[in-house]
Amino acid sequence: MKAVGIIVEYNPFHNGHLYHALQAKHTTQADVIIAVMSGNFLQRGEPAFVNKWSRARMALESAVDIVFELPYAFATANAPNFAQGAIRLLDAAHCSTFCFGSEDGNLEPFKRSLHLIQQAGDVYEEIVKEAVGRGLSYPKALNEAYLSTVDSANTKGSIADLSMPNNILGFHYMEAAQKIGSTIEPVTIPRIVARYHDDVVEGNRIASATGIRKSFFESDALNTVASFIPDSTREILLQWQSERQSFGSWATFYPQLRFIILRDGPERLRSIADITEGIENLFYRAAANNGTFESFMREVKSKRYTWTRIQRMLTHIFTGFTYDKRNCMTTPSYLRLLGMSQAGKNYLNENKKRLKLPLVSKAAAFSDPSLEMDILASDLYALGIGNEAFRSQIGTDYDTPPIIIK
Amino acid sequence: MKAVGIIVEYNPFHNGHLYHALQAKHTTQADVIIAVMSGNFLQRGEPAFVNKWSRARMALESAVDIVFELPYAFATANAPNFAQGAIRLLDAAHCSTFCFGSEDGNLEPFKRSLHLIQQAGDVYEEIVKEAVGRGLSYPKALNEAYLSTVDSANTKGSIADLSMPNNILGFHYMEAAQKIGSTIEPVTIPRIVARYHDDVVEGNRIASATGIRKSFFESDALNTVASFIPDSTREILLQWQSERQSFGSWATFYPQLRFIILRDGPERLRSIADITEGIENLFYRAAANNGTFESFMREVKSKRYTWTRIQRMLTHIFTGFTYDKRNCMTTPSYLRLLGMSQAGKNYLNENKKRLKLPLVSKAAAFSDPSLEMDILASDLYALGIGNEAFRSQIGTDYDTPPIIIK
Repeated sequence: MKAVGIIVEYNPFHNGHLYHALQAKHTTQADVIIAVMSGNFLQRGEPAFVNKWSRARMALESAVDIVFELPYAFATANAPNFAQGAIRLLDAAHCSTFCFGSEDGNLEPFKRSLHLIQQAGDVYEEIVKEAVGRGLSYPKALNEAYLSTVDSANTKGSIADLSMPNNILGFHYMEAAQKIGSTIEPVTIPRIVARYHDDVVEGNRIASATGIRKSFFESDALNTVASFIPDSTREILLQWQSERQSFGSWATFYPQLRFIILRDGPERLRSIADITEGIENLFYRAAANNGTFESFMREVKSKRYTWTRIQRMLTHIFTGFTYDKRNCMTTPSYLRLLGMSQAGKNYLNENKKRLKLPLVSKAAAFSDPSLEMDILASDLYALGIGNEAFRSQIGTDYDTPPIIIK
Repeated sequence: MKAVGIIVEYNPFHNGHLYHALQAKHTTQADVIIAVMSGNFLQRGEPAFVNKWSRARMALESAVDIVFELPYAFATANAPNFAQGAIRLLDAAHCSTFCFGSEDGNLEPFKRSLHLIQQAGDVYEEIVKEAVGRGLSYPKALNEAYLSTVDSANTKGSIADLSMPNNILGFHYMEAAQKIGSTIEPVTIPRIVARYHDDVVEGNRIASATGIRKSFFESDALNTVASFIPDSTREILLQWQSERQSFGSWATFYPQLRFIILRDGPERLRSIADITEGIENLFYRAAANNGTFESFMREVKSKRYTWTRIQRMLTHIFTGFTYDKRNCMTTPSYLRLLGMSQAGKNYLNENKKRLKLPLVSKAAAFSDPSLEMDILASDLYALGIGNEAFRSQIGTDYDTPPIIIK
């Protein structure tokens, strides 16, 4: 059996995701789709809209055959580390290919870009460093270095546009695959219609996840978005809503976050991963001054830090993810199975002995600092959601068996 | 003008407190009553029922002339440090006497006890150490050492019964006054009717604070307790209730406490004041297992640790009060004025230049680590109370002026 790997967040799963998954399978002639999915905290440094179990179920009920959890340390990391974690898992699961969405759906520009940057080597690194020194945000510095590398190589026009978020991730996936010497082959398909921040537009059956969440928060009903999401997604969101009366977001989690920032104080915040350059003092003052996440962010946002970078720091503050903890998690050490279809089950049976990392079906049976962190993140997410009935239900991750779709 | 000092928590202020304050004034022929009152966290390691401003107002509207805040570091400490902090403030405020409630209202047994223990010196300390080593709680070990000191001195019968909470505090007040070489004179009056844990009994106009809080939580109305508290206390509690719909208690604060214990983990908890001997691991497991404070305490309570000692550790966890922070706060460094009557104002005017510590009327105008901690404790208390409207109102301690009763 042949597997294609995809790297996803499904926040929440919608028609665009379904289309991408099916295209990936079709293009690569794969028998099964393996998704590496972020847990309850995402790459942009945000709590997921609904938890990982609900999102895994959405995926499995639509098209995906196997969902592995991308451990917290990688799911909430910058693009290179996020990519490294995800590609290692797909490689460990013996995927023949991985497929990512890009602006143009053409792999050649990515290959050329990768080649160019590798040729530039230290020069590239130095330009990045210098640009950060000038006060540029890290992604902007990367792009500047990239463009100047390209310019001097006189190959403009035939390389990937790394100012686009999807292209950046795709680039890092390819880089990661090459770095670890994997035989996994990259494939790209074009993104369709809705861009990252586009709102839901009626008459269009594809919308961005951001747009779907937004219309959901605004209308407080699923009617607006029903035509943009599979029925199974709709069912799962309805069930979530009736049980919790609340969705994951910084607005929801802010009272908790604020309490922690004030209680820890700058001194203790300094040990939290990604906190640098005295930003802990800014966070501390802003938490004292602001009663909403929106106004908190208005106070801390500056040119120097991207919104994403700030949110990642806040995620680590929320979960108590220190530099010390992160230092023990440099590479994924297990394949945490969140769920599978019948085809997925067959694939795993067939490949059981060839998997390059231990398969974890039940968390209680496996001991690992990174897995402990995933479980803690789940617990704190559950407490943050705030519904009394669910607040007491923590530690469930230890015993939750993988979802199996018949 | 002559002042008598009293050391109080007023949680909440009731007829018994009023009686004690008036008796203290009468017995000592004082012109004004100065109360040193705990802030938002109390000596038994609990959040106060209502905040310090409301409690100070209750006291000032009934009989007390000046309320100074006992800083967090002393208000939540064990009996000797609590006593040291409180007596230093009364001494700094130039009280001629301090008055405490005791079981018998007779000062002589206390004097003899103090003398005996001082004579025993190191022997006493050694018996305490040995008894703690055998697994006794600290208060029990103290009492054991005390009794054996007394036995060997053949003076039984004429000494204070230090197995009673009020007597223990009284003893430490006297010890503290002697240690700092203060000229302040001790006075004691007998406690009346209701003991610490007695419930409200109808037909009796004096009830314990514990009883009052309990009947309030149970009936959710002030009718039951109306005859045990002054009208002004009743008004203040009613206003609090209508604004916050919630009172301070571990039951209310537990979701927050639980989140912090899980998020910090044993590693970080170890730096919190009073955490010793691996109890952080027990707390961590119990927080994972229990959705209510009641069941949490059932799991962590053992013979080795008194309820109070455990609650103090939890208070420090809640407020992030580390060993490092406490080490900077060995003795009170200011007199924080929460409020005063006209007589109190006159007294302060008259004694302005004789006060032994700086008088802080507005927190924003004074900088001190201990004051910072008091303000932080107020903020975290406000966030813990949980009413949305009040959650955003933090940092108010900086600008709140002292209450002035006309």
